[in-house]
Parts: sequence; C-alpha cells; structure tokens
Amino acid sequence: MKRIWINAVILPMAEGGEVIPQGALGIQDDRITYVGPVPTPAELDTYDEVIDASGKAILPGLVNTHCHAAMSLLRGYADDLPLKKWLEEEMWPLEARFTRVQVEAGTALSVLEMIKSGTTCFLDMYDHMDTVGAVVTQAGMRARLCRGVIGIGSDELRENKFQEAVRFAAEWNGQADGRITTMLAPHAPYTCPPDYIRRFVEKAAEMGLPVHTHMSETAAEVEQNVNDYGVRPVEHLRRLGFFDLPSLVAHAVHLTDEEIDILAEYDVKVAHNPGSNLKLGSGIAPIPKMLKKGIRPGLATDGAASNNNLDLLEEIHLAALIHKGANEDPEAVPADTALRMGTIYGAEALFLNDQIGTLETGKKADFITLDLTGPHMQPLHDVRSHIVYSASRSDIQDVYIDGKAIMRNRECLTLDEEKIRYEAVQAFQAIAK
Amino acid sequence: MKRIWINAVILPMAEGGEVIPQGALGIQDDRITYVGPVPTPAELDTYDEVIDASGKAILPGLVNTHCHAAMSLLRGYADDLPLKKWLEEEMWPLEARFTRVQVEAGTALSVLEMIKSGTTCFLDMYDHMDTVGAVVTQAGMRARLCRGVIGIGSDELRENKFQEAVRFAAEWNGQADGRITTMLAPHAPYTCPPDYIRRFVEKAAEMGLPVHTHMSETAAEVEQNVNDYGVRPVEHLRRLGFFDLPSLVAHAVHLTDEEIDILAEYDVKVAHNPGSNLKLGSGIAPIPKMLKKGIRPGLATDGAASNNNLDLLEEIHLAALIHKGANEDPEAVPADTALRMGTIYGAEALFLNDQIGTLETGKKADFITLDLTGPHMQPLHDVRSHIVYSASRSDIQDVYIDGKAIMRNRECLTLDEEKIRYEAVQAFQAIAK
Repeated sequence: MKRIWINAVILPMAEGGEVIPQGALGIQDDRITYVGPVPTPAELDTYDEVIDASGKAILPGLVNTHCHAAMSLLRGYADDLPLKKWLEEEMWPLEARFTRVQVEAGTALSVLEMIKSGTTCFLDMYDHMDTVGAVVTQAGMRARLCRGVIGIGSDELRENKFQEAVRFAAEWNGQADGRITTMLAPHAPYTCPPDYIRRFVEKAAEMGLPVHTHMSETAAEVEQNVNDYGVRPVEHLRRLGFFDLPSLVAHAVHLTDEEIDILAEYDVKVAHNPGSNLKLGSGIAPIPKMLKKGIRPGLATDGAASNNNLDLLEEIHLAALIHKGANEDPEAVPADTALRMGTIYGAEALFLNDQIGTLETGKKADFITLDLTGPHMQPLHDVRSHIVYSASRSDIQDVYIDGKAIMRNRECLTLDEEKIRYEAVQAFQAIAK
Repeated sequence: MKRIWINAVILPMAEGGEVIPQGALGIQDDRITYVGPVPTPAELDTYDEVIDASGKAILPGLVNTHCHAAMSLLRGYADDLPLKKWLEEEMWPLEARFTRVQVEAGTALSVLEMIKSGTTCFLDMYDHMDTVGAVVTQAGMRARLCRGVIGIGSDELRENKFQEAVRFAAEWNGQADGRITTMLAPHAPYTCPPDYIRRFVEKAAEMGLPVHTHMSETAAEVEQNVNDYGVRPVEHLRRLGFFDLPSLVAHAVHLTDEEIDILAEYDVKVAHNPGSNLKLGSGIAPIPKMLKKGIRPGLATDGAASNNNLDLLEEIHLAALIHKGANEDPEAVPADTALRMGTIYGAEALFLNDQIGTLETGKKADFITLDLTGPHMQPLHDVRSHIVYSASRSDIQDVYIDGKAIMRNRECLTLDEEKIRYEAVQAFQAIAK
C-alpha cells in the first residue's frame, strides 16, 4: 500500500535535511519511500491514497530513551521528597506489591499517554517484562525493552533475576514484527555489586545486545560510589567493561569534565531526563558540555512517578530552556538541537538510528503530524522554534508506526482508553495501603 | 442569575481552603456565592441552572502578572540570542514599526491564547494601550493595563509619553465593568533616568495607582546600574520612592540576600517569569529564598517573543520544577505553592486579591474548569500535583470571568479565532523586512 501526505511542513531531522515548508512524505507499507516537494499530479496518481496535511507539520516520531512505564500507577503518589526517601520509603514498598496485573495496567496507561503525546518508540526498564512486551505488541508501539535488575538479596534471588533478564532479552528481541528489541540492564552501580554488573556485560557481549543502567543521578550516589569502590561511577563502569559495549546511561547529572571526556571517548549514549532530574532535585545535567564534546544525548521522561507525565515534547521544551537559564547562555541547546535530541539522537541512544529517528527514504514509517493552527503557533515564523517552545502535546494529531495509524485526530486506534483508565485505578486500589 | 457547578473537584486556593474532592461552586451574576460540598436537592432547586462538572476540577482563573501581549506577532522571530542583542537588534527595530494595527492584531492573538490556556486576568505593559483596552473589553478578560514608557529621547518625546501614560491610566481605570484597572509603568531603571522614574512615582501616589517596572532581569543590567548610579537596582528604586507605593517588579532574577530583605520589608510584589528568564539565558530567580522571607511571587509569561507562548499553566509547571533542580532540593516550591503563585499570589501581585485569585464567597466569579480524565491524569492521587506536574493547557475546558462564559468546551465565545489568526499574519507581513 502506497500512501502520501502532501502540503505539510516536513521536518526530516536528517543530517543537512532542511525544513520543507510545503512538502510531502510518501510511504509504502512500513517504509518511507519519499521525502520532498509535493510531486506532480501524475506522480501522485501512483499512490493508493493521497492525504492532504495542510496546516500540519510532519516529523519523526518522538523517542523516549528511559522509562519505567508501569510506574504511572504511582503518578503523584508521593511528591516533593528527596530521591532516597522517595525511593526507599514510598516507591519500593508499593512497587514490591506490583504483580503482573499492576504492570499490565500501568504499562497500558503509559503507552496510551505516550502515543497521545507523539512518542513512537520508548525504552522500558522494569519487571514482568513479558507483560510489557505484550502491551507494546498490542499497542503497535516500538520499544527497546529490558528487565531492570537490582542486585540485592540472596545469591539464588540474584541468579534467578539474572537468568530471567537474559531469557527475556533472548526471547523478545525482534518480536512484534521487529518493533521490539531488547537490552540487558543492571539497575545501577549503587544497587548492583561489581561482579554482578560484570556478568551482565559479559552476557550482553555474548548475545550481541547493548547494555543500559542508571548512572550519576544524584550527588549522594556518586559520593557513595567513591566510598564503596574508590572511584566515581564513570570510571567504575569503565573498569567493568560496560563502555566496551554499545551502552546507554540514564541521567548522567553529576559528571566532571574528565568523565564527560570518557563518555565521549567510548561513545557512551546518554538518556537526559530533565523533568525527572528537576522534580527530584537531582540537579541539571551538563548537556551543553556534552554537546561540545560530540555526545548526542537522547531525551527521556523517566517513570511517571518522578516526572509526573510521559510527555516527550515537554522534555524537548525543558531541554531547550533549562540549560540556557542554568548557564546564563541563550545559545545553549538551540531549538533545533533540542528537537534532534527528541528524535534522531534518541534513536541513536537506543541503537535504532538505522531504522528510525529521521524522515529518510528507506527508514521505518514512524512519524507524527502536528497541528500548526492554534493561536500559540501564530505567526509561523519558525516551525522548529514553535514546536520546541510553544507547542503542547494536544497539538499532536496523528501517530504512525511502521506505516500503521496508531492515533488519528487524537483518537488512539489500538487501545481502549476508557478500559485502560478504569483498570489503572483498579490496579492501584488493589495494592494501596 | 444563580448557577451552580456540582460534582467537581474544587480547589479554592484560599488560606486554609483544602481541596474538596466532590464539591460545588455556586455563583450569582458576577459573584461567587457558594463553595462547599454538593448541596441538597432542595437547595439546588434555588438555582436557575445546575451544571454537572463530574470529571473536572474547578479552580480560580490563572493570573499572568507580566506580559507584552502585542509581541506575539514576533513569536519565534529571532530565537536563541542574548537579551541585549535580541532586544536592540531584533525586537526594537520591528516594534518601532508597530502601529495600532499590529497592537490590535497581536493583542487579540495573545488574549485568545491566554483564554485558551486558562488565564482570566493579565497585566499588560505596552504601547497603543487604548487599543489593548478595547481588545480586553471585547474579549471579556480582566486586565491590569499600563503604558510601558521608555525614557530615552528628547524632552518633548518623554513629556508626551508621560502624559499619555497618565491619561491612559486615568481614563481606563475601572472600565469594562471594572474588569480593567491601570498602573503607571516606567519601563526599567536602565531605560529611564532617575528623575523620570520619580515623576511616575509622584504621579502614581497622587492618582492612588500602583507602579510597575522591569528590574534586575540580567546580570549585565545590574552591573550597568552600579556603574551609572553607584547602587544596585533595588536600592536605586528604593531611593526613588518606588517601593513606598504598591509596587510590582518583573523578573527580579539577580538579587542579593540584602535586596531580598528590602523587597520583603517594603512588601514589593514580584512577577516571576521562569520561561522567559530561562529562554533568554537571564538566569533563575531566587524564588525559594524569596518565599522564605515571606514574599509571595506571582507568575508571568512575559511577551510571547521571549517565551514563546502565553501558557501560565506551563509557568506554574516550570516554577515547581526549576527551583528544585537548580537548588538540588526536591522540597523547593512544592506543587501547592506553585499553584498559589499562579492564582492568589498573582492576584496579590496585581493588587486585585480582594476581587480574584481564590474561590471564596463574595469574590468575582473568575474560574476555570479542567478535565481530569486524560491518561496523564490517572490515577488521581493528588489533584494539585497532577495539575502542576502533568496537566497541559488543552485540559482546560471552560473559562468564566465575572460569571460570564468566555470559553466553553475549548471554544472561545467572545473572539473569532479564525479572523484573529488571519489578521495576526497580515499584521506581521505589513511590517516584515
């Protein structure tokens, strides 16, 4: 099936790919086959369907590089607390009661929210990952999934978790017509002993999978790493061979200049979580310095319990704003860079940039349309600026993944919104104190 | 006419006024007459209209304490530049071509955008203020209006501007059924010589009006003040008698602890513009310190050219997030405080808190309803948290000002959206380079 969207403002986000003020995007089945000016009527006749997208922008689907989807059940449950207290006294006790039921309900709620805010691909790091995989499959989403493993407890428990993570990663890699890929993910240096992390690294190398972990989110955690292991987390992970693999670290808030150099040298990918880092008081990651060193950070929402939403457009907005303010430099993270962080840099962070992240011939047809007619989008001087600084999630109209309509005119076509809302509330009530 | 909204989550925002999970808001004509639990059927019978607001929150209309509405015509026109260059090389040359036509088109666009994002009252500081007053009147908005005067140029020019500002303030105070009030507003210490500022102060005292100005937005401007006058802007304005009057300063980004003490001592009101301050790289205002000293800052968008939208809910969100991150303190500016900054503190900043800013019997019926059924609002653990951290402008459903429906189900009833969009584009094109 050949389809083409015409008369839209096209943002290819490809290297050197300028905005096309009145352009067209053609696809065949799940692939992009055309990006350029509106073709002639004769050429349009070769398409099965021609869609007039006047008044809309078309851009690559947004990529969320770090999430714990099921945690949306705990959205706003315990706000405005320090990370350690929030995690240990509020989140972990409730999460310990999560069964497959809570993970299914929370993940479905999150996937729905992500679709409605223009995200077409996300990384999820959680538990009960078979359930997450099933929800992603049904929703038609694209995802990089990993069982996040905390290495605390008995040897047997840790062994079981390790095996489960490996089994999940092997079974699900390439599922859902290739929309699901996997990773191995020890939770963090402060929750996993070094030898345990090393086992994941060795296994990932053997399986040809990337690795993911939390790193240097808070100052306290960096200090603890120094106390426990004599080095800061970057050097710690480097010594464990983590960076010898394709690797993605979430947060990277507290970094020295030398650590940024190491990350750049090893081409370590970074998931920047501005909303979560701000809300938990973790700090502000040195993104302008990373960009100067050639690191291309992706953006992420983290879980909804620490954000409190899963709106990647908002993370793009925050990334464009906060580094300017924190560095008193209005040229830090320009709008175009923030938009790349939310699209192609995110795809790179998930090692999926050969498939997604730009609108280019041959790539997967993962794209979104965005309404340009709201009062907050007038006059349309610079579409990138307007999307980054002024748009909001409700401007996103349509979501396509693998060429399939997932949302049309803001109605999600693959998921039952009312059922998901109801089940989320029920699932939370079943575990409430 | 007596009307009552029932079955809503009511956020009165009054001192000690807790959230009412299933409550009612009653009004008679332009005044609030009831806030509390849903009345009995017999009591409901005394109302002319009973509106079921299930699944919605009702809160006071948002208050935007500093704006230059007409500048929406320049939204995104020249982004990511330093303030001085942005103002002097990009904004001022284009603004110099603004006539009544541009101000009318830009203000209408901004008022529409503000209504659609839940703002019921705003401060505007600009030129051609009779036109601004006319737009506000037609839109049914509430506004505190002032002619912002730059004190550069010939004596005659400065005298004319002074007289114009005074004439406007006298003529329009109390217009539009009292919805419009006025102020006197010398633009800033760095654009107005001291004797000129003193004239405004003396005149405002005589007229019984508050005064407004920009203050300490950038580090450079503070330095210049020290070079020119030997003191920082706070002491400078204090010596000019500015703080002896009810006074509101916009920005207040670069303050010493001693300056915060002076502002607190004189009960100076502050318009905090987080989005604009971040985007222009001006810095991050010391809001947590101000709050500790008893200052209750209002929130503001500034003009759309430096924001780039006029979404006060986003400013509430930013105010709740950025101070936590910048201070690495998750308890800085809790959700409830941010919501107060956007409502009652804003009303205080505009010296309108006897009329608006909370839902209390006797106050003006300026309120908004907000949809709670989106996936990003589930489960509804804490409505304040959800509104501050997760909601977006499109969740706002209805806007009432003086008891009159201004927006219903997201349709603005007082303004013609399509005409405004068209005229905004035309008005910009007429002055484009």
